[in-house]
Amino acid sequence: MTDPVLTHLKSETPAIIERVLELVSIPSVSTDPAYGEGMEAARVLLAGRLTAMGLANVQRLEAGGNPALYGEWLGAPGRPTLLVYGHYDVQPPDPTELWHSPAFEPEVRDGRIYGRGVSDDKAPSSIAIETIAAFLAVEGRLPVNVKILLEGEEEVGSASLPAILANHRNLLAADAVLSADGARWRPDLVTVNVGSRGNAGFEFSVTTADKDLHSGRYGGAVANALHVMAGLVAGLHGPDGAVAVDGFYDGVAEVSNAERATLADIPFDEAVFLDAIGGVAEGEAGYTALERLWLRPCLDVNGMWGGYTGPGGKTVIADRAHAKLTLRLVPGQDPEAVSGLVQAHLKRVCPDGVRLDFDDERGSSAAYEVPPTHPLLLAVEDALEQTVGEKPRRVRIGATLPMSDMIRRELGLDTVMFSFSTADEDFHAPNEFFRLSSIDQGLAAWTALMRRLGETDAADWQH
Amino acid sequence: MTDPVLTHLKSETPAIIERVLELVSIPSVSTDPAYGEGMEAARVLLAGRLTAMGLANVQRLEAGGNPALYGEWLGAPGRPTLLVYGHYDVQPPDPTELWHSPAFEPEVRDGRIYGRGVSDDKAPSSIAIETIAAFLAVEGRLPVNVKILLEGEEEVGSASLPAILANHRNLLAADAVLSADGARWRPDLVTVNVGSRGNAGFEFSVTTADKDLHSGRYGGAVANALHVMAGLVAGLHGPDGAVAVDGFYDGVAEVSNAERATLADIPFDEAVFLDAIGGVAEGEAGYTALERLWLRPCLDVNGMWGGYTGPGGKTVIADRAHAKLTLRLVPGQDPEAVSGLVQAHLKRVCPDGVRLDFDDERGSSAAYEVPPTHPLLLAVEDALEQTVGEKPRRVRIGATLPMSDMIRRELGLDTVMFSFSTADEDFHAPNEFFRLSSIDQGLAAWTALMRRLGETDAADWQH
Repeated sequence: MTDPVLTHLKSETPAIIERVLELVSIPSVSTDPAYGEGMEAARVLLAGRLTAMGLANVQRLEAGGNPALYGEWLGAPGRPTLLVYGHYDVQPPDPTELWHSPAFEPEVRDGRIYGRGVSDDKAPSSIAIETIAAFLAVEGRLPVNVKILLEGEEEVGSASLPAILANHRNLLAADAVLSADGARWRPDLVTVNVGSRGNAGFEFSVTTADKDLHSGRYGGAVANALHVMAGLVAGLHGPDGAVAVDGFYDGVAEVSNAERATLADIPFDEAVFLDAIGGVAEGEAGYTALERLWLRPCLDVNGMWGGYTGPGGKTVIADRAHAKLTLRLVPGQDPEAVSGLVQAHLKRVCPDGVRLDFDDERGSSAAYEVPPTHPLLLAVEDALEQTVGEKPRRVRIGATLPMSDMIRRELGLDTVMFSFSTADEDFHAPNEFFRLSSIDQGLAAWTALMRRLGETDAADWQH
Repeated sequence: MTDPVLTHLKSETPAIIERVLELVSIPSVSTDPAYGEGMEAARVLLAGRLTAMGLANVQRLEAGGNPALYGEWLGAPGRPTLLVYGHYDVQPPDPTELWHSPAFEPEVRDGRIYGRGVSDDKAPSSIAIETIAAFLAVEGRLPVNVKILLEGEEEVGSASLPAILANHRNLLAADAVLSADGARWRPDLVTVNVGSRGNAGFEFSVTTADKDLHSGRYGGAVANALHVMAGLVAGLHGPDGAVAVDGFYDGVAEVSNAERATLADIPFDEAVFLDAIGGVAEGEAGYTALERLWLRPCLDVNGMWGGYTGPGGKTVIADRAHAKLTLRLVPGQDPEAVSGLVQAHLKRVCPDGVRLDFDDERGSSAAYEVPPTHPLLLAVEDALEQTVGEKPRRVRIGATLPMSDMIRRELGLDTVMFSFSTADEDFHAPNEFFRLSSIDQGLAAWTALMRRLGETDAADWQH
């Protein structure tokens, strides 16, 4: 027997697609102040929708940056309270000349909606909103208590999110966070993401002289900043591919046999993975590619430069060289502490007399992991299985989702991702798209999840 | 008894300085076509002077670039024929805002002439020209046969000089080259330069993927072009500071005890040398700084870059990394062969699957060494001793003088440097200057050298 809410959603789908297109046509780019009008237009549209669908207490939560939008429905006493997360800001459209249809004139082609922000995160957020609206329209109530939080700074590092969370702890109090953001790994596999790596990073510079020196007049007798930098960077990894920094792996749990088996069971062809990017396999000896990506920390230099980099030759000995690096961290590693270990290592191995400077203005996030028996995680797995007829596999992402870490730190809540975007939808590139089939799938899965959560008691969520 | 030519030169000195100022006021910058008028004005002025002073066969020698100027006096049968070399082109004046007086409005201050090109090479060339003019004015003849060659492309790598030399082998035939270019090492030491290092260089790139990759989604499982580049660059030197390339030192003579003693006897304070540049000592173990600079080959990376180098962080894994390097070579090393050895080494150690590309469009020069008993070298030493009352020390320069190598290859001639510029005269920087005292010294030394050479027979120069 079909769920009446889902029946309603199916008949509504053309209107839902229209509303997604309307939202995507608004250029709500958060990184560029020139799009301020688009940001405001998105807020007006969404706040109106939250109010119209029957949410209470609709308001803007602000802490100096682009406000987040809030709305709630709290009419299910005894049931858990979900904080549903999404974001209304999008990436810039550049390079616009590479788009086949204009970034902010969304278009349906070949079973997909094309437009900036449709996959990240306007369609996935809309699926959450539309499902909640359908329950209220059909049944006048929701199976659980819901608080919706739509952020406006996700694409610029969620700069004011920690302050928004800290300033509204009571308003945002909940049992768990259900995120409509966070792409699914692959279009060909049903998965649920149970963890992400943390990150930290800094820039460092070596100085070997007061100015660039003539390589003829000084070559062979003075230190060259580029040689020193190359030695420092080359020394960050050992011949076994491991990070060669004392203490780097302290606190990192060894990959268990159970984890190895789980990962080995996931259909994943490393050759195909590498071929898609023209990449070359490399990494810590003794681990598979998925283990390296999901369960092991790593260190990557993101940029390195110094000396003459223009056309032709210039026979200088560089006085300065620079590098930026990022650490990806796993549970058990404190970002600041590990970053400090790497800096201490560089200081220790830097040749005598060479100046070493650090610039670590960048933020950091700890790794995130959903507790394996979390009731929201179990409910999400059940809802997916019910919807797609297949038990989802637990996967992780190697990237970092600072939001989960911020929410855990500020509100003490766990986050489960339940987005219906997919990692291949070019969401930070031209021709971002979202599959129409994911709208059907998402509405069905969100409906099933709401029903399932309505069968749980808030008391059972205290773990 | 004072030489009558020198007496004449002394009385002429104020006029000589005026003529130097006039020449320096002409912006003959060869690297920038916008200065084409200045280049032509310098040629007109100098050709007029060569003719007026009594040289024959004054003409422009051209091979596609800026012409060289030529003039000759061949009235001393049985005496050697000198090819006197200088250049009339200068470096660009940028950054002009750092000049205390305009680059092309030369000014006499504190016993120095300030202006672009005064030290490199307009005053030193003028000393040669004025001395020759004085002999012709006072005595109507020169002690030796002289051919003057004033190049117009020295500051841009002497691109058409080899063709000019090859096209005029008979016109330029001589017994040796006396160069009015090539700065003296130090203002506090009387020296004669007997050798320079050669050079070769190339750019190379490593490619590890088709595009920059997200360091979260790929970090730990794929090769990073910057790590590969750092490893390649770091591996170019061994822990002993020597170049770790098989065969790099093949053919390089070990520094003899006699050479060691000669160098050890030269007043040179490495701490002062380093302090002047804020530099850090480094180099091949077992050699002093002067041995490293003058008698040993070396390898320096001049530029290295890849990945994200802008402000802030960007968590990419670089797909490509680039470096430029220069070799400084000593006698016994063939530039092309040694460059090939370094490339072969890089290919051998580059990790499997990583693409390595080379771009070696740059020219190369072999090291240059004046035969230790060359009659022109001995005459220069005598003339210097007679002028300054002190036997000059034989020194070398670590840099490369492509002209000497070109002339040896095209004309089969040795070159002895007899310039009166000094290496501290900021000749490729703002506020280039030339010491007025060097004009007096240069005129006296050139006069003494001409006399001394007039006592030799051309037949004795065939060695």
